[in-house]
Amino acid sequence: MTSAHEQELQAIFGENRVLLEESDRLSYSFDASFGTYMPDAVVQPRSTEEVAKVMKLANREGIPVYPRGQSTSLSGGPLPVNGGIVLDCSQWNDKLEIRPEDMIAVVSPGILTARIDEEAEKWGLMYPPDPSSSHVSTIGGNLAENSGGPRGLKYGVTKDYCIGLEIVTPEGHVMRTGGRTIKNVTGYDLTKLIIGSEGTLCVITEATLKLVPRPKAYRTAMIIFDDLVTSGQAITKVLTSGILPSKLELMDQACILAVEEYKPLGLPVTAEAIVLIELDGHPKAIEEEIEKVAFICREAGAHSVNVAGSSEEAAKLWQARKLVSPAIVRKKPTKVSEDATVPRSKIPEMFQRLKEIRDRFHVDLVVFGHAGDGNLHPNIICDKRDLEEMDRVEQAVEEIFKAAIELGGTLSGEHGIGTMKAPFMEMEVGPIGIDMMKRMKNAWDPNQIMNPGKIFPEPGKKLVLRDE
Amino acid sequence: MTSAHEQELQAIFGENRVLLEESDRLSYSFDASFGTYMPDAVVQPRSTEEVAKVMKLANREGIPVYPRGQSTSLSGGPLPVNGGIVLDCSQWNDKLEIRPEDMIAVVSPGILTARIDEEAEKWGLMYPPDPSSSHVSTIGGNLAENSGGPRGLKYGVTKDYCIGLEIVTPEGHVMRTGGRTIKNVTGYDLTKLIIGSEGTLCVITEATLKLVPRPKAYRTAMIIFDDLVTSGQAITKVLTSGILPSKLELMDQACILAVEEYKPLGLPVTAEAIVLIELDGHPKAIEEEIEKVAFICREAGAHSVNVAGSSEEAAKLWQARKLVSPAIVRKKPTKVSEDATVPRSKIPEMFQRLKEIRDRFHVDLVVFGHAGDGNLHPNIICDKRDLEEMDRVEQAVEEIFKAAIELGGTLSGEHGIGTMKAPFMEMEVGPIGIDMMKRMKNAWDPNQIMNPGKIFPEPGKKLVLRDE
Repeated sequence: MTSAHEQELQAIFGENRVLLEESDRLSYSFDASFGTYMPDAVVQPRSTEEVAKVMKLANREGIPVYPRGQSTSLSGGPLPVNGGIVLDCSQWNDKLEIRPEDMIAVVSPGILTARIDEEAEKWGLMYPPDPSSSHVSTIGGNLAENSGGPRGLKYGVTKDYCIGLEIVTPEGHVMRTGGRTIKNVTGYDLTKLIIGSEGTLCVITEATLKLVPRPKAYRTAMIIFDDLVTSGQAITKVLTSGILPSKLELMDQACILAVEEYKPLGLPVTAEAIVLIELDGHPKAIEEEIEKVAFICREAGAHSVNVAGSSEEAAKLWQARKLVSPAIVRKKPTKVSEDATVPRSKIPEMFQRLKEIRDRFHVDLVVFGHAGDGNLHPNIICDKRDLEEMDRVEQAVEEIFKAAIELGGTLSGEHGIGTMKAPFMEMEVGPIGIDMMKRMKNAWDPNQIMNPGKIFPEPGKKLVLRDE
Repeated sequence: MTSAHEQELQAIFGENRVLLEESDRLSYSFDASFGTYMPDAVVQPRSTEEVAKVMKLANREGIPVYPRGQSTSLSGGPLPVNGGIVLDCSQWNDKLEIRPEDMIAVVSPGILTARIDEEAEKWGLMYPPDPSSSHVSTIGGNLAENSGGPRGLKYGVTKDYCIGLEIVTPEGHVMRTGGRTIKNVTGYDLTKLIIGSEGTLCVITEATLKLVPRPKAYRTAMIIFDDLVTSGQAITKVLTSGILPSKLELMDQACILAVEEYKPLGLPVTAEAIVLIELDGHPKAIEEEIEKVAFICREAGAHSVNVAGSSEEAAKLWQARKLVSPAIVRKKPTKVSEDATVPRSKIPEMFQRLKEIRDRFHVDLVVFGHAGDGNLHPNIICDKRDLEEMDRVEQAVEEIFKAAIELGGTLSGEHGIGTMKAPFMEMEVGPIGIDMMKRMKNAWDPNQIMNPGKIFPEPGKKLVLRDE
């Protein structure tokens, strides 16, 4: 970038919303994954017109552009790997309209995701996607990454709730996709293609989101299993019983131990698995169903079942799951959080594979996550300054990906590919798959300026978690 | 096509599955919409390898290829408008596997859609999409067109249930998209892009479909309204009450009259609207909810509310809706069936616009459809041999499209664009939208052989419903 480019940016945004100082740019050089990369400039758009102008400039001059929300990405989505301009959309939060009659919300990209559900609640409605970052991450980032969360089991993910977008193309054209109706088959579904494309196809400037009626009641049960394989079998039995829980979360023994060390809750440290199940819906229906869940789990060999009698009791049970992340990072400073996902029926086998990987590479591997939809979170706790350890971690992560794909699953259930998993893309989608995705990318972004270095593998590039 | 091409087809498919006789080809020259176009050859693939071979031949020689299911399309999706090869996939029905533990079905393209739900039922599961053609249309066609149906209101459409595909690209490469897990963010979502692309991007050779637990009970209510606008207001009140019906169908006075003339059921011929609401779910929950629906409708000014006491009574109430299509075509031989869709809150206004269009063009317009999701079916009953009448019908249809778009809706909720609505595409998606869709098309199908003449407008082309 030249000083002429900088002046052009200042003409678009004013001086206050163009950050050029090194100290300012530094805050935009990393996200919640690995690696640091300095951008040349950071701009803070607050209108579609501003985005169109900056894209026209960048496209004309071949300057890379990186859309960014609150940078909670675990896969490197917003990292400015080739320098250029970071589009910080986190300040662009002026629109959050609920239209209860149409059961939709219309939002600016910088709105925090949890706020959408909070506003919807005022109208008896719900925005279901609930990534664990939802109180700090923006809807723009959630859309770019197609974020999931515990409720994915029953309600699906971000993509299932976005029915329309306003975007700016890499060449600076403003365009609307989809609309305000649930049914829409007018041409290609560009909306769903853009969601999850990790900012490599365009900049999202507004979204129309579908809302659903808010459930009237919730019930929670905590089920304790002596061994992990039995827990997997019980989960399958619950899910094929005609009951669809709103959440079905699991934590393994390593998580239980870590939580008990961090904050003693009286969890059974000899148990291999704790499963938490939440049902939502009509109070009479879930009253009956939670008893059925308890019965099925006992029959399947659970050590014990605890059905919460009140919402306070339920909150207490969920505390164990909520403490997993803070508890595990106390042991060592670095957390490599994966989201390899397998078909539900392969969960017991995936647990077995993860055990073998832990033993083989001597890594500190804990497993928790959304067991109901096969979206596990194997987390490796390590220290990125310990190069020998990180070498083993890198190998273990590669083996986790291989196991997931061999079992008919996927590299990433909800974190995205970004820089972190790009080296493994071909393993899952094959050379034809990559070619057909790249054709889309090239057709929309001929100058390769939109968020380069993400999704698509660069020849010879390997996973590197060590500080280089 | 040359005789060398014909011989090459016979080498791939054997003589029995290559149809070259005019009498055979004639059956493939039309669908359930308008216009007839003769293909040069029809082939009946039963394996992915056969499709790959025919695509390689077609791509090499620049021969158009038209995938086809049971040709129930109302928008011209499978019409062989430029000659070439029809791929009749309706005989390819060897695979229909239900995997209850993963809650998925894996199917060949020629499987009839209703059969998937029938098989799923054996495992206590459901495949929700229910286009009214589901007993005669194939899943391949449903996927290509992203079919909807009454259950769309609560359950969404075909796209919401397909999580993975096997396809053959226009250049003859075999590729898998998505997978067997609900959560999958590995690269671009090609699955959702292909669904609804009307056979213009590739050939679908296998699909993996998500299933859900089957509801345990159903309740139905028939609500009669003296005037249409009141019915629209009542629908909005029901939908914002926290209750999400599985179906919410409406028929206007013209439908009521037509049904009563066809088969007297004792429907109130002075009523302007009948609304049928079905709830599904836990018996205790919907018992309470159906009473609430009845209360809301009475409060909102319904003439009368009839809640079915048994499944037999419910079936009787639904008979009125089922008879609409056979009843209306008795009046005149041609039915122009539209699916313009508006945001829910605009339903009363859309009814007003449709009344004005009926009066202005003196057309026989009846309205029924999926009012709960704004997906109305304005149907014009006419005689395509009456050129003067068809001229008015064409103008009326154009006005219906304009009204839907002006009210924030869409040209097509579930029938697709095909040949019929291509002239109106730009009105909805704009020139940038068409350009960005075309770039996708060109990137995948550089020789323009996949189902040409569909979706994209040809310059100067207008809607023509008359036999030319």
